[in-house]
Amino acid sequence: MEEVKIGLLGFGTVGKGVYELIKKNQDLIQKRTGIKLSIKKALVRDPQKHKGYPEELFTTEPDEVFKDPEINIVCELIGGEHPAKEYILKALELGKEVITANKAVLAKWGDEVWGTADKLGRFLGFEASVGGGIPIIKTLKEALIGNDITSIIGIINGTTNYILTRMLEENLSFEKALNEAKEKGYAEADPTLDINGMDSAHKIAILASLAFGFFIPVEKVYVEGIENVSVLDLMFAKDFGYIIKLLAFAIKGENEVEVRVHPTLIPENHVLASIRLNYNALYITGNFVGEVLLYGLGAGKEPTASAVVGDIIDAVEHRLFKKTSFIKYPLTKKDNFYKIKPMDEVESKYYFRFSAIDRPGVLSKISGVLGEHQISIASVVQIGRQKPGESVPIVMLTHETKEKNVKLAFKEIEKLDVVTDKPIKLRIL
Amino acid sequence: MEEVKIGLLGFGTVGKGVYELIKKNQDLIQKRTGIKLSIKKALVRDPQKHKGYPEELFTTEPDEVFKDPEINIVCELIGGEHPAKEYILKALELGKEVITANKAVLAKWGDEVWGTADKLGRFLGFEASVGGGIPIIKTLKEALIGNDITSIIGIINGTTNYILTRMLEENLSFEKALNEAKEKGYAEADPTLDINGMDSAHKIAILASLAFGFFIPVEKVYVEGIENVSVLDLMFAKDFGYIIKLLAFAIKGENEVEVRVHPTLIPENHVLASIRLNYNALYITGNFVGEVLLYGLGAGKEPTASAVVGDIIDAVEHRLFKKTSFIKYPLTKKDNFYKIKPMDEVESKYYFRFSAIDRPGVLSKISGVLGEHQISIASVVQIGRQKPGESVPIVMLTHETKEKNVKLAFKEIEKLDVVTDKPIKLRIL
Repeated sequence: MEEVKIGLLGFGTVGKGVYELIKKNQDLIQKRTGIKLSIKKALVRDPQKHKGYPEELFTTEPDEVFKDPEINIVCELIGGEHPAKEYILKALELGKEVITANKAVLAKWGDEVWGTADKLGRFLGFEASVGGGIPIIKTLKEALIGNDITSIIGIINGTTNYILTRMLEENLSFEKALNEAKEKGYAEADPTLDINGMDSAHKIAILASLAFGFFIPVEKVYVEGIENVSVLDLMFAKDFGYIIKLLAFAIKGENEVEVRVHPTLIPENHVLASIRLNYNALYITGNFVGEVLLYGLGAGKEPTASAVVGDIIDAVEHRLFKKTSFIKYPLTKKDNFYKIKPMDEVESKYYFRFSAIDRPGVLSKISGVLGEHQISIASVVQIGRQKPGESVPIVMLTHETKEKNVKLAFKEIEKLDVVTDKPIKLRIL
Repeated sequence: MEEVKIGLLGFGTVGKGVYELIKKNQDLIQKRTGIKLSIKKALVRDPQKHKGYPEELFTTEPDEVFKDPEINIVCELIGGEHPAKEYILKALELGKEVITANKAVLAKWGDEVWGTADKLGRFLGFEASVGGGIPIIKTLKEALIGNDITSIIGIINGTTNYILTRMLEENLSFEKALNEAKEKGYAEADPTLDINGMDSAHKIAILASLAFGFFIPVEKVYVEGIENVSVLDLMFAKDFGYIIKLLAFAIKGENEVEVRVHPTLIPENHVLASIRLNYNALYITGNFVGEVLLYGLGAGKEPTASAVVGDIIDAVEHRLFKKTSFIKYPLTKKDNFYKIKPMDEVESKYYFRFSAIDRPGVLSKISGVLGEHQISIASVVQIGRQKPGESVPIVMLTHETKEKNVKLAFKEIEKLDVVTDKPIKLRIL
């Protein structure tokens, strides 16, 4: 029987989850693998803050984890960019196998971090960085290794999905839905990175890098958040048979890939439309497997701990059996023959909502501008005015067109004197 | 660069899929892994039947695969029980890593087959045996290894799901829907094992063994097929807000497990209710990960080939790096402290449909018998008669009760002179 001692960097939500999982399921894991897992040290800022756990678990001195020869596996669970990145690199260089839940570090410096692990022959597990307990990384790296992955489309942020679900189903305002999410623990105190789409952007950068085999840093991801999605648009979309979700896309074209995050109208009979509340779901298409969907809780203490422990067992295997990290993705060096498609060139169907004065000829003016920019309208709804002089919404669905056409058309439409508010555009799946 | 030569036993649908996948994605796989896969030999009965493939690929002599020292990986893709089982054992004993898509052999002799692989330290891949391209085996064995798996509930037969979808959505008769499934290639010429639930039973026996850690042979699985599901019941269920699917269950209780397959009413807002046509979906619950759903094509040439090739790469890793098969499930020897719960003891809510003469007091008679057997009714719908003397349907939903109560009550109800046809019972999720 092999005992494996683990060092934790950080003891926040995820760290506590890992500790509790190992405590609770230690015997079961040992029965399954022959390996007894135990956590030897956890690096924290203030041990006083972690009452109720064994005192000797904690240290404030990084080297008590890094330099302990008994600790072969280090889990970086402090989050943020620094010193997380430096800790990951240091642990790899000191010969540890490393597990991280840190999407920001991978999405920003994946080439360096993956490259270092690869060069040193170390295991670097990051299942917990995307989709909580959903086994998306293992599925891409291992189960679907025989496939050319042609697209990944997913809901990979639970906070925004919760908010959009509650806005639609209970007619809540954005603020009310956000507050509810905070109360339930589905949104952090500062939910900025969730709301503005950056959390999803980090995650899709990691997935796109894995799927397509070259490093795609988060700066290359086009991002729109849900700040401008209103109950009005959720309702209009629903009337047209669509549900609005914050979707992340990684799509492979002939010579280019599209990597983007934005609110999107999904036909209501599509499986992704049925993903409610704080659940995540990922739709992967491979050239042999066809479509595969993975669904589950994309965050939270326990699901994330499940992912970390799955990686720990892989790390143990790697170490015990000197298994080389032989699935070499992302290919960090060459082979980036693919380019990222500029957003201007991305084609999509659109949902537009204009606010305009209800006066004869308004619709013809707006549609005239759209026509000039090769945007053809699939359907249109104009709601009659309630009071004279009030502005009314005009909602349109378009056929496929390029983003740049929409941008140019909107510039002109915004200038029309009959248009009373900033027009809304949302893409359709 | 390592070249890995593979032997195929059988060259039917799945064999052809594997051949085509490796041909098409060989370079991609090599770029990812450094390994060049190639198929050296395929054992077939009649090479003349496989025109269009290289002639030298085929042999009718098993030992040309088994005794070839260059072939380290053997894929058993002939299906059926014999000689498939003997071939798997022989390949393991001759030192090959083995991949199989054979659910029947594993569900019947899993203890022997898994036990042999384990004893000899060989890799035995069986991802393709359940759920086609859906990575359910890898997810259970690896990604969720830290979890106590408390239940698996799934739609794991595409043929029956296709039939039930078409019956409900297009009001097709069972026969029409089945014929359509055959035309589309979703049902085999002889679909008996799909329709009667045995295909699902084989698969859930494998999954339950993996999840709970002791071998559960298919004979222990309670099975009902979809033969008795009528359009009428699909419609009534829909009126109550349920969709009927053929579900497979593996549920862990205190000291017992339930393993069963039967048509089931699912609340229509449940994700499993939205799985249409020939898709499969598996709902897994673990004590840390919570609920995870995997969804995709559960059969077919290309998805199944994707699963086989994923296993091939794991087998190569196992062989190259002498990785011991260290995730020891199912625990084939001891540890079967769990018992299978007898179906009579399983509790469920029920949907009943009785055909009865429309006469005062009928409902009270039927509900009287139910009451005597501790079955309490949650709601009831009695449709008025069309013509005098015609029998009418009485549909009921019950609260939780034991199977044996239902059996006893039905025995009495069937004898009532006002009851004109065999009563229907379906369980509710």
